[in-house]
Amino acid sequence: SWSESEREARVLVINTGGTIGMVYEDNVLTTEPHTFVGHLKKLPMLHDQAYAERTQLFAYHKDAGSTLVLPSVAPEASHDFLWRQDKRVVYTLLEYDPLLDSCNMTTDDWAKIAKDIKEHYEDYDGFVVLHGTDTMAYTASALSFMCEHQGKPVILTGSQVPISEMRSDGRDNLLGALLIAGHFVIPEVGLYFHHKLYRGNRVTKVDSGRFKAFLSPNLPPLINAEVNITVSWDMVWRPNTMHKFRVHTNLNRNVGLLRLFPGITSDTIRAFLQPPMQGIVLETYGTGNAPDKRPDLLEELRAATDRGVLIINCTQCLCGSVSESYATGKALLHCGVIPGGDMTPEAALAKLSYVLGKSELSIKQQKEILHENLRGEMTTVYSASKFSLRDSS
Amino acid sequence: SWSESEREARVLVINTGGTIGMVYEDNVLTTEPHTFVGHLKKLPMLHDQAYAERTQLFAYHKDAGSTLVLPSVAPEASHDFLWRQDKRVVYTLLEYDPLLDSCNMTTDDWAKIAKDIKEHYEDYDGFVVLHGTDTMAYTASALSFMCEHQGKPVILTGSQVPISEMRSDGRDNLLGALLIAGHFVIPEVGLYFHHKLYRGNRVTKVDSGRFKAFLSPNLPPLINAEVNITVSWDMVWRPNTMHKFRVHTNLNRNVGLLRLFPGITSDTIRAFLQPPMQGIVLETYGTGNAPDKRPDLLEELRAATDRGVLIINCTQCLCGSVSESYATGKALLHCGVIPGGDMTPEAALAKLSYVLGKSELSIKQQKEILHENLRGEMTTVYSASKFSLRDSS
Amino acid sequence: SWSESEREARVLVINTGGTIGMVYEDNVLTTEPHTFVGHLKKLPMLHDQAYAERTQLFAYHKDAGSTLVLPSVAPEASHDFLWRQDKRVVYTLLEYDPLLDSCNMTTDDWAKIAKDIKEHYEDYDGFVVLHGTDTMAYTASALSFMCEHQGKPVILTGSQVPISEMRSDGRDNLLGALLIAGHFVIPEVGLYFHHKLYRGNRVTKVDSGRFKAFLSPNLPPLINAEVNITVSWDMVWRPNTMHKFRVHTNLNRNVGLLRLFPGITSDTIRAFLQPPMQGIVLETYGTGNAPDKRPDLLEELRAATDRGVLIINCTQCLCGSVSESYATGKALLHCGVIPGGDMTPEAALAKLSYVLGKSELSIKQQKEILHENLRGEMTTVYSASKFSLRDSS
Amino acid sequence: SWSESEREARVLVINTGGTIGMVYEDNVLTTEPHTFVGHLKKLPMLHDQAYAERTQLFAYHKDAGSTLVLPSVAPEASHDFLWRQDKRVVYTLLEYDPLLDSCNMTTDDWAKIAKDIKEHYEDYDGFVVLHGTDTMAYTASALSFMCEHQGKPVILTGSQVPISEMRSDGRDNLLGALLIAGHFVIPEVGLYFHHKLYRGNRVTKVDSGRFKAFLSPNLPPLINAEVNITVSWDMVWRPNTMHKFRVHTNLNRNVGLLRLFPGITSDTIRAFLQPPMQGIVLETYGTGNAPDKRPDLLEELRAATDRGVLIINCTQCLCGSVSESYATGKALLHCGVIPGGDMTPEAALAKLSYVLGKSELSIKQQKEILHENLRGEMTTVYSASKFSLRDSS
Repeated sequence: SWSESEREARVLVINTGGTIGMVYEDNVLTTEPHTFVGHLKKLPMLHDQAYAERTQLFAYHKDAGSTLVLPSVAPEASHDFLWRQDKRVVYTLLEYDPLLDSCNMTTDDWAKIAKDIKEHYEDYDGFVVLHGTDTMAYTASALSFMCEHQGKPVILTGSQVPISEMRSDGRDNLLGALLIAGHFVIPEVGLYFHHKLYRGNRVTKVDSGRFKAFLSPNLPPLINAEVNITVSWDMVWRPNTMHKFRVHTNLNRNVGLLRLFPGITSDTIRAFLQPPMQGIVLETYGTGNAPDKRPDLLEELRAATDRGVLIINCTQCLCGSVSESYATGKALLHCGVIPGGDMTPEAALAKLSYVLGKSELSIKQQKEILHENLRGEMTTVYSASKFSLRDSS
Repeated sequence: SWSESEREARVLVINTGGTIGMVYEDNVLTTEPHTFVGHLKKLPMLHDQAYAERTQLFAYHKDAGSTLVLPSVAPEASHDFLWRQDKRVVYTLLEYDPLLDSCNMTTDDWAKIAKDIKEHYEDYDGFVVLHGTDTMAYTASALSFMCEHQGKPVILTGSQVPISEMRSDGRDNLLGALLIAGHFVIPEVGLYFHHKLYRGNRVTKVDSGRFKAFLSPNLPPLINAEVNITVSWDMVWRPNTMHKFRVHTNLNRNVGLLRLFPGITSDTIRAFLQPPMQGIVLETYGTGNAPDKRPDLLEELRAATDRGVLIINCTQCLCGSVSESYATGKALLHCGVIPGGDMTPEAALAKLSYVLGKSELSIKQQKEILHENLRGEMTTVYSASKFSLRDSS
Repeated sequence: SWSESEREARVLVINTGGTIGMVYEDNVLTTEPHTFVGHLKKLPMLHDQAYAERTQLFAYHKDAGSTLVLPSVAPEASHDFLWRQDKRVVYTLLEYDPLLDSCNMTTDDWAKIAKDIKEHYEDYDGFVVLHGTDTMAYTASALSFMCEHQGKPVILTGSQVPISEMRSDGRDNLLGALLIAGHFVIPEVGLYFHHKLYRGNRVTKVDSGRFKAFLSPNLPPLINAEVNITVSWDMVWRPNTMHKFRVHTNLNRNVGLLRLFPGITSDTIRAFLQPPMQGIVLETYGTGNAPDKRPDLLEELRAATDRGVLIINCTQCLCGSVSESYATGKALLHCGVIPGGDMTPEAALAKLSYVLGKSELSIKQQKEILHENLRGEMTTVYSASKFSLRDSS
Repeated sequence: SWSESEREARVLVINTGGTIGMVYEDNVLTTEPHTFVGHLKKLPMLHDQAYAERTQLFAYHKDAGSTLVLPSVAPEASHDFLWRQDKRVVYTLLEYDPLLDSCNMTTDDWAKIAKDIKEHYEDYDGFVVLHGTDTMAYTASALSFMCEHQGKPVILTGSQVPISEMRSDGRDNLLGALLIAGHFVIPEVGLYFHHKLYRGNRVTKVDSGRFKAFLSPNLPPLINAEVNITVSWDMVWRPNTMHKFRVHTNLNRNVGLLRLFPGITSDTIRAFLQPPMQGIVLETYGTGNAPDKRPDLLEELRAATDRGVLIINCTQCLCGSVSESYATGKALLHCGVIPGGDMTPEAALAKLSYVLGKSELSIKQQKEILHENLRGEMTTVYSASKFSLRDSS
């Protein structure tokens, strides 16, 4: 009916794979294609069959077999935005074939997800990407850069335990991601997990055994979904842009992560930096420190930056920022290393891959862009003024 | 079939009421009798209809209409106890009429719950009590004392949002409580909420807006139910008893909670302590401090203890313990006030009610019992001896 | 010298007593008058004797014997405000005689502190109040209301362990409070403890055994004083006022805190509410719930409000807010009880005492004021618009 | 006097350098040799000059100029071990020349520290090592392996802000480390920071901007030093040995840390693993997962283990453990990779360096030792047997 469809939000769920959709077979977790939607249909909190039939939902959607609808939200608290909106979230599953374990994902898979979002961009109000947790922070970071002039939410989620299991975090994670993607105009790549929406390029997986698997060490969550759903609107990234959404999928794969450790040799660094390597994230100590009494190491880094390798300095500490004011940090600066502020290594790696993929730019231009805050991935001290000037291109 | 029933655990779920079973009617949350079991039957993670039919489950149980069975647990992790046991939890709902809002519960309701546990004690492996969150910590404390020589788990749970709602913590809470009650021999009154089992007389409700509503400020949780379920067996309370389980339901209602505040008058204290009041929990400052320069207050307390009123000293701080070594605390000791250690006010109130209900005991005997750790409700420090064995010289 | 005094901030430290200034005598902690300043003078992080002599500091101050000066701050981080300011904090101690244990403090003591701030208001840039931790949250709340049109910081602090002890939190707490009072224009009554500045009427003492003794359950700290000092300027309360600072010291003492518990009798409530009681904070369950099936209780409350007693509804949960939308909460509303939002009981009690002390107002006017957010003590949903309209009168 | 020296504990403080001893010079933090002891002497909480003079402390110690004594502990709480012991901690500083920035430390520096502990082992009751925070977790891990048959505490500490600064965490850190080293028989290499003693091979630096810089993600702290000092004696590592203390200083430097990231190439892995590399810690995803659909990567790893390179699998998640039961983890197992359990990468690297340094052992023997829990660096689960004893039937 017309009036009901007026009050519907459309969400595309791209199921790339991961634990959330797995099942046990001979006591081993495996993926089983084309079964996920069937599982969801049996879960009353994730599908309202009565509504679907009443509104002839399936007749209106070409992907009828993969289209589901959430139940209505209750009038729990009068000040809760969801309840006042009273919208139904209709969602369609797009399942990858084969389903992927996130360990095995590469930049090609990131590009595929980005292209799929682009292809269906006009048809949906928001996007949910189901993904294994192992590399979800990497993919979320990459998508945040690849999506240019983004105006709709793209939310990654997944789970520690399959949705087909009795005790599963997958139901709550999927439900939360769907509600946010369907109700809130948060034009970011987010990651929703265990009652919180984080900015995608700020998270890192910190726990393999607890339901709270992710942390956003240097930025508070954008949304807390407790009894009420609370959005920190002042933190939501707002690109000042009128350009059309597009995805940049040409990512450079010749990038790497190198973590410093005591006793690292210049041989190791040289080997790691050898061609075709074009950019690395150097995981340093504390506030961005590296040995300044090790001329052999510094020379290797200097040699690399001289021949055009881009090196970003990120701390191996979970929390905190690379400072430019310490002697040991300055040594790296003098070698041409770019300070990474409070970026996660995951975000820095994705940013490198993205910027190096802009092959029309000179290395100097690429270096300049790497200093900038492109998608809220790092904290700029003069954020107030700087943020309003920034475009998301 | 015989072999399957061998591998079944039986749990009785006493549904006293509360948010978990509520539904919205005209935008208001209300209780609707006899509907809860129907809701549960539709939830695949809380009922396995195929198993029920295959094993003719309903034919074997007299409460067939109220009996459900959890799905099997998956072989997730080889070191997880549940998975190796491979037991089915068959549970039967016993619904109170009328269903109660926990705000309205009294000592009579506590007695009813205790009697129902006693009545069905031999028929089940464990017990789950569904309860509103508002006074759940009080009820859990009371039941912990009322249950004497307890050998089976009694687990209270509930939720912040009804199970009939899309986003609800009720499903996970009920599921966790059932699994624990069915699988682990934890002979305690516990409270399960948001992935943790707490000792019931150690908890307090600390949050009305988040799913993590309870805290056990002075004792770590007994169980963490994350991706795996981890039991801290060394903390589980083990009554050294061969007696038969029984419930003591004669609770004294002439007890109260009185919180100190600056400027409290002796009039207020006298009014609060007037007969028929027989016992109060005095919520003091810090480590059990009260004004020692206020002879008027202290005289009122002394007068009360002289006429047989039992007064327990608990701190109004969430964490920490009442110490007997401070001057301001000693003033209370001299007035005949009993130090409450690190008991919660909820536990202290319930303990008073329980001990005063032992009407065969003299006041002196009651006072002595109040000093003891009866159900793990307070920390007793044998640290002195422990430490003196380890000299660093 | 002139140029140096230009770069000095003046802070008055009102030492009311408490653990921070205590010493051990015969193994008992006691206060010893006139010794605190001597202790401080020996601590290089709290007094720079060389600077004092170089600038003839003592010659310029009439309270020379009680005046000290902090050392200079280091250029640690270029973006840290303190370091750029490069100001010296000169502070003078005003010691109460007798020194008070905070357990014994009353509204008269609060009035004395307020008057002392008023008396010296023009002579100092900021104020630090040393205070025992036991009732510090009550005093901070009270001062926040008593101080009208406040334009300078008033920071309460103290410690869990005396400054004269080896392991003491007092040095860091005093130092942090002095630096903030001397450097930042935060026109609030704050409470500084364990690296954080909280709004004074938002805190509660939650721990008697850890250095982190206070919590501000419903509002994040205003300042985090870690390696760098970070101020959340957007949260600082800014009274929209041009009035002169004044203190309202006429506090009403006929107020009280009453915590609900299961089985509370109408006799207890009646006794507690009997004259001369004029206002109480009712600590209810969860989101402000009370038994709605207990007409005897509700009648007592209704009778009290009918005869002009002001009753504020606060939750006994540490976190969360009283909602007006639940049935059990509505029962109280119908009895004339005022919803207290997310105020702490400490703040609500102080607000009652303050508003009832405005004897020129009618009870109706007093009730209206109690609904308002006067000093940031409660969260108003439409805070944006509401905050800018509010005056601090 | 004799009776007083009886009640003295002796601690050697090895000052290797780091922030704790730095000073500002021309707005830059630098080390200044031979000044640290002078700073400490001015701090009453770190030196009791009156006691030193009364007992002629300096006459008894050959390192008189570098020997200080802590003040006495107060009788704060009767159950506190320290207060009952009433011992003085006399400590002597041994300053390295040159003082080292921890970024620049190598295995040679670790060996020097170990040798210095060995050299003075009989003369002291405990050892404190002052160290920069950047690589403190690496050094603590290394020392824990190098110290064999350890019977006395070795405690590393340092600070985020120099002790010479006004706001410094160094005073509390040094004080806590000294008290623990002097009073408790904890025969471990520990790391004391911000009120907690952690096992040294369990920590990682997680924050460069907060005073709480370290975390022990998979093991609770051994000591909480709050108002009272609480030791978790059941967690303290007790070597079952009667051998004499010795240090193994022959560490292998041909070891490295390699973190997986999406898109890592087999070229990168081959380059990193090329000779002379003899052992690496592979930082994998989640529960120890690596791409199992990347035969090129797996072949490189297999080739390396075939030629004798030892590879330990550690997760890049802060918390959690490498499991042997997942398919993606099994792929690594088949390549000869050793599962690292819940070891930190820092501990695993140090363990590799230590075990490879046992050159008398065959590679097979080294691999076997790497599977064992040598110093409490990883959690071994005897849960299986524990759980099976407790059947709930």
